[in-house]
Amino acid sequence: MTVSLSTRDEPVLGAFRITGGKTFYEAQAVEIIDQLALPHTIKWEQVDTVHGAFDAIKTMKSLRASQGTEVTYASHPQIRGAPAIASLAALGLAAELLAIQTGRDSPSFSHSLLSSPPQDLLERILERCAYLFTSRPTAVNLREALQRIEVAAKAEAAKEGATAESLAKKVIDVAVGVWVEDKERCERIGDNGAKWILDKLEREGKIEKGEKIAVLTVCNTGSLATSGYGTALGVIASLHTQGRLLHAYFAQTGPYQQGARLTAVELASLGAPHTMVCDTAIGALMAEKRVHLFVAGADRIASNGDTANKISTYQISLNAHHPHPFSPNPPVTVLVAAPLTTLDLTMKSGREIEIEQRPSWEACTVRGRVVDPAKLAKGEEVEPAREGEEIHVETVLVTPPGTKAWNPAFDVTPASLIEGIVTEVGVAEKGAGQDEYDLRAFVEERTQA
Amino acid sequence: MTVSLSTRDEPVLGAFRITGGKTFYEAQAVEIIDQLALPHTIKWEQVDTVHGAFDAIKTMKSLRASQGTEVTYASHPQIRGAPAIASLAALGLAAELLAIQTGRDSPSFSHSLLSSPPQDLLERILERCAYLFTSRPTAVNLREALQRIEVAAKAEAAKEGATAESLAKKVIDVAVGVWVEDKERCERIGDNGAKWILDKLEREGKIEKGEKIAVLTVCNTGSLATSGYGTALGVIASLHTQGRLLHAYFAQTGPYQQGARLTAVELASLGAPHTMVCDTAIGALMAEKRVHLFVAGADRIASNGDTANKISTYQISLNAHHPHPFSPNPPVTVLVAAPLTTLDLTMKSGREIEIEQRPSWEACTVRGRVVDPAKLAKGEEVEPAREGEEIHVETVLVTPPGTKAWNPAFDVTPASLIEGIVTEVGVAEKGAGQDEYDLRAFVEERTQA
Repeated sequence: MTVSLSTRDEPVLGAFRITGGKTFYEAQAVEIIDQLALPHTIKWEQVDTVHGAFDAIKTMKSLRASQGTEVTYASHPQIRGAPAIASLAALGLAAELLAIQTGRDSPSFSHSLLSSPPQDLLERILERCAYLFTSRPTAVNLREALQRIEVAAKAEAAKEGATAESLAKKVIDVAVGVWVEDKERCERIGDNGAKWILDKLEREGKIEKGEKIAVLTVCNTGSLATSGYGTALGVIASLHTQGRLLHAYFAQTGPYQQGARLTAVELASLGAPHTMVCDTAIGALMAEKRVHLFVAGADRIASNGDTANKISTYQISLNAHHPHPFSPNPPVTVLVAAPLTTLDLTMKSGREIEIEQRPSWEACTVRGRVVDPAKLAKGEEVEPAREGEEIHVETVLVTPPGTKAWNPAFDVTPASLIEGIVTEVGVAEKGAGQDEYDLRAFVEERTQA
Repeated sequence: MTVSLSTRDEPVLGAFRITGGKTFYEAQAVEIIDQLALPHTIKWEQVDTVHGAFDAIKTMKSLRASQGTEVTYASHPQIRGAPAIASLAALGLAAELLAIQTGRDSPSFSHSLLSSPPQDLLERILERCAYLFTSRPTAVNLREALQRIEVAAKAEAAKEGATAESLAKKVIDVAVGVWVEDKERCERIGDNGAKWILDKLEREGKIEKGEKIAVLTVCNTGSLATSGYGTALGVIASLHTQGRLLHAYFAQTGPYQQGARLTAVELASLGAPHTMVCDTAIGALMAEKRVHLFVAGADRIASNGDTANKISTYQISLNAHHPHPFSPNPPVTVLVAAPLTTLDLTMKSGREIEIEQRPSWEACTVRGRVVDPAKLAKGEEVEPAREGEEIHVETVLVTPPGTKAWNPAFDVTPASLIEGIVTEVGVAEKGAGQDEYDLRAFVEERTQA
């Protein structure tokens, strides 16, 4: 595994990149961003083996656990980063199979396997999949991706006239497909959401045709947890690509500061005009500035559209609906962006969602890069980390020792405050005069075709 | 100036204390809390001279400026700590006069002045007042307090039969009065507010007679900036003293964390049951828990009741008015607590209030005590500072370098969202069916009697 430190301007959108303008097939490797070093250092690590993928998944997990300040939902299938983990495991396997196709041995496969009976390679591939699965046995997306590869590999090997070569090619294609599908799903969510809000605002006469819009978002909505632009950020990225983004505001999103730490990096990479807003100033922002859209991700969506998401999504949505009396602006449209896998059609409403409480100390501490406030007060800027520079990062306790905090990880925004739910298959809306969605009907209709 | 470090359980309410159960007249000294060391270290400094008072005021100011992360309103008369500064200056002068009364020389006054003509002592007192004034020439309360002392001193000295003894006694009484008045004003605000909310909730049938209530507050409302319990905290203290406080919730109040840093210390000192709430979780709190009252301080109140206060007061007030659909609770009553000096009757409405923008870096950094998150994650508690222990405090940057933030210091809560404004002369309410207050009429009525 080699480490490269990017320059300031290199894009860091998505958890992956292929350097040098190559395709994955040419590079036979992928680079992953080191999320633990963000936002203070931007580090890419190359992964080109099964073991490298295993290690990166394992390391991310154990470092995150030892840091303690990341929210992890042990009881929740939507583990942050799950789609990215599945893609990484698949690409690690594909990279090694590409390597032996070009006549080299790889750590998992000797080149000679390609001229042996396909059963030999199949056996080895299945063993490697089983090994990759143990890197994070709880990750649903990882299990699904590996199962898909296994099923395809077995089917190919059982085919009449199958060779080790045809088996390798098949597995490479299916594995790369896991990654490409995830990227495309993000793009579809983003494009669907962007089209929906622009059409709606134009139709309602709230913007001129072609006018740019200002968007507010909260938390980090997954571009660093997926293979693409993520969910809510995908909508912003799509607007920006179309030249329709006036400004992106993002909530700092305490106590874990996902906006301040991660969304800030992503929006800078995207080259989109952006400004952070304190969690305390969201109401004031919408009173003072014209904000057209508040777009949020989702942890879980009940079948009536009630949405559990990062804490503060509810209070922001409420403020979006009630303009400040001094403001000349109409209410801000609220859009939830999420893949279909986030919908939980077994839940009638958000009342069934249990809210996880996090420990007090996590709300009382903040992690960041040690700086000299006297210099900042004089107008000096903090320099981005130089290559190889060790950044001094500390966790500080803001409160007196022993302070107790009420620290729920998320809240539930009622469907009545949400104007649309955008997925990869389109945007769900409430029926006229309805306060709730019928997401069961939406899913049936959109996934039948 | 001597320094004493209090034990954990000693009260730190109010900026001052007199140790050993004595009166100020007996102690001839006052102790002030070192606000710069809070909340990590609780340090008291004894002040018993004019020079000591001057120094403490000067030091507080320059340290605060060099730290950079405190909000100061250069253009605003309600400077944080102004009442406390005025009291401290007055008490420093009084302490020296008490000292010479007991037959000692003090740094400013030789004991022999008491047997000289009163003009000699008057001259020296006026010179000392002029010196104290230079410790913070912009502090309105300080100027007013010193003027009051000067006027009383001159009048006493001009009286027939005046002696240096009678002059000293007069100045001591007026100076101590500055402090006592400030304490009493806080108590009146607190008691008026507590009575108002309890009467209202009982009258409306929202609580049983004698039932305890839960209260939410924001920022630090002044017990550390005044000689008493401050404003909004005074209401909570009064409820607690009456045995009517069920629970006090306080918002952490980013980006300057006044709740997390200061209100946490005060509520612990008060012995009131209390819990911090993340700024992102206020809406969720009111959805989940029964909160009866949201009480906030004020930076400035226009004559119609529109109130500028610490950023987030507006969005909390809005959430207070709109219960979550899952919640069985009625709206939360919103009360603003402030001394009459905060009313600006020259302003028709809050639209005239200019909102100060603070620099980006202040929103991107947090200051606190360096801790080991791995230990906290294992359930270990951070120990309060021991006597003489050096606490390692750092400022950390949470965002990537150069992140721009929209960072207004306060917001304006429209009068329509405020059910009452409590002052030392009573509680102002809106007329039936009115969306605004007539504070001019309220002040005229209540201050005429």
